[in-house]
Amino acid sequence: MSELRKDPITGRWIIFIEERRHRRRHLPHQYQESPEEQVCPFCEGKEHLTPPEIFAFRRNNSKPNTTGWNVRVVPDISPILNVEKEFKSKGIGIYDTMDGLGAHEIVVESNIHNDNYDSMSIDQIKDIFRAYNQRITDLSKDVRLKYILINKNFRSGMGTHMPFHHPHSHLVAYPFIPHIPETECEGAKVFWNYHNRCIYCDIIAQELNEPNERVIYSNEEFVLIAPFSSRYPYEMWIIPVKHSYIFSGNDSQFESLAVTFKEFINRMNAVLSNPPYNFIIHSSPLSEEFREYYHWHIEIRPRISQVIGFEWGTGTYTNAVLPELAAKEMREVDVKSIDVY
Amino acid sequence: MSELRKDPITGRWIIFIEERRHRRRHLPHQYQESPEEQVCPFCEGKEHLTPPEIFAFRRNNSKPNTTGWNVRVVPDISPILNVEKEFKSKGIGIYDTMDGLGAHEIVVESNIHNDNYDSMSIDQIKDIFRAYNQRITDLSKDVRLKYILINKNFRSGMGTHMPFHHPHSHLVAYPFIPHIPETECEGAKVFWNYHNRCIYCDIIAQELNEPNERVIYSNEEFVLIAPFSSRYPYEMWIIPVKHSYIFSGNDSQFESLAVTFKEFINRMNAVLSNPPYNFIIHSSPLSEEFREYYHWHIEIRPRISQVIGFEWGTGTYTNAVLPELAAKEMREVDVKSIDVY
Repeated sequence: MSELRKDPITGRWIIFIEERRHRRRHLPHQYQESPEEQVCPFCEGKEHLTPPEIFAFRRNNSKPNTTGWNVRVVPDISPILNVEKEFKSKGIGIYDTMDGLGAHEIVVESNIHNDNYDSMSIDQIKDIFRAYNQRITDLSKDVRLKYILINKNFRSGMGTHMPFHHPHSHLVAYPFIPHIPETECEGAKVFWNYHNRCIYCDIIAQELNEPNERVIYSNEEFVLIAPFSSRYPYEMWIIPVKHSYIFSGNDSQFESLAVTFKEFINRMNAVLSNPPYNFIIHSSPLSEEFREYYHWHIEIRPRISQVIGFEWGTGTYTNAVLPELAAKEMREVDVKSIDVY
Repeated sequence: MSELRKDPITGRWIIFIEERRHRRRHLPHQYQESPEEQVCPFCEGKEHLTPPEIFAFRRNNSKPNTTGWNVRVVPDISPILNVEKEFKSKGIGIYDTMDGLGAHEIVVESNIHNDNYDSMSIDQIKDIFRAYNQRITDLSKDVRLKYILINKNFRSGMGTHMPFHHPHSHLVAYPFIPHIPETECEGAKVFWNYHNRCIYCDIIAQELNEPNERVIYSNEEFVLIAPFSSRYPYEMWIIPVKHSYIFSGNDSQFESLAVTFKEFINRMNAVLSNPPYNFIIHSSPLSEEFREYYHWHIEIRPRISQVIGFEWGTGTYTNAVLPELAAKEMREVDVKSIDVY
């Protein structure tokens, strides 16, 4: 059971999850990877160790919760939000609360335990994106849900109740629009109201113009850039070139995205020596209101630096690497030619 | 030389500090404490190892940059913002930049290398607050500065170019109002415009009423609470009971604050076994505009949990410890009676 509480000053929602209380004394430096000998519930043949699957791409008409899949979506065993709930909200004096309605799913990205984006085929990565798309489309039908976030933590010591090595990502559906996407939407709306154009489209236009100094890679469908106001060293964004408000695509677009993704992975691993990293997909809130002025994108954060105290207290980030320099390194690094098929 | 860049979507400013580039490959788990045998520039007798002091509380008319002080303020040797600069701003297409004008000072909190709030006298802690107050008053005269943040990182692996053990805090003066204090100000303004009251005063009134379940300690001048919408396990706020927009006080108020501070330190150390922690002082922006509706306070974050990927991507925090439970533990813990003088 989780409980949502609204900060009366900033309007931010906080999610309280009592079940995880036993983890509270894990100091950051005490996090350890799961021992290899533990049984991994995400491996093929161990389907009975997860809750029943929500969705999978399966071969040869194999049955749900058996072997024969290449991407599999299951509920998180310790969800931060839960879909089987009434939607109740109440006030306590000056304060507001609501029940922790939502969804929290795990996308198991491969049936191979030590697989990774750099070892996966383009088709496999495409199927991961197609699985995200399927889940977003399905969850969007629940009108109580307001926002869906896809989030990947790779070897980052984050989200540590999961087996570390088996590739997976998280999907969380929220009953409110979280603070950061909301701030982006508001900014995009202000720009739209003034210029009658999407701000992300304008950013792409400026970046694709000479001197292209923050572009790392681009193709007809996607651009990979080090953003002008990067919060973190070597921060990267993947943005669809054509305006598109919600994470979606056809077969050829997802293939293009997978190719762009391989470029990011191979270049980042070469320049930063296989760093831990996170990525998130920022897509439009589910309401139709945002179609014109929001533009979905993937934000990537190599975890090679720590957030310092000022950042925690101010929300102002300090970055020691100019994006022009990061982009130059990423662009010029000698990566093995990428095997697309 | 630092450069400020504004995120065109969210309006957040990012500080780029090229000088720190050599630190970029320090992964979080590689941070180490400075070896004890290194000479500490913050120790009494080593005043020549810091830039010339800005301010100090000195005994017996001792001269600046000599021994004989108990709190000493010096410029940071690797400042994120720098006061000796023209204030220049320019546009690059869609983007905005400005020079990194501001100030970054270190408050050396004691002349004893291994001193700590739990070993310091109330008078010593009072002098730290009086030094903050002196620096805020002085820097406020520079109309180019918009916001001052006081920030302490205790054994947290943050802000690591400083000797770890010698007690110190950071003061940063910004040429803009950073995102988080701005969000708080805007929220407080909305509340003021509707209710004609300060939201922090209303929060204090509700918390000091029965059942007081989030109050850890209070005296006539200050209240120590676990806030209703705590973002972090065991988050605590110290708030002055009387409305006061900017960090300030008279002798008796700073004494009360030091006593409240000791209560927080002793209780936190007893319940969480001397955890690493941060605190920040959120005070009003320097403009007079915020006097009515902002209310300064100290926010404390024991660093016993990590920010997870969802939080990075959404700004929505997940907390495994309800503040009522945290406050109960903090309130009921058996601390040695505190030696006030």
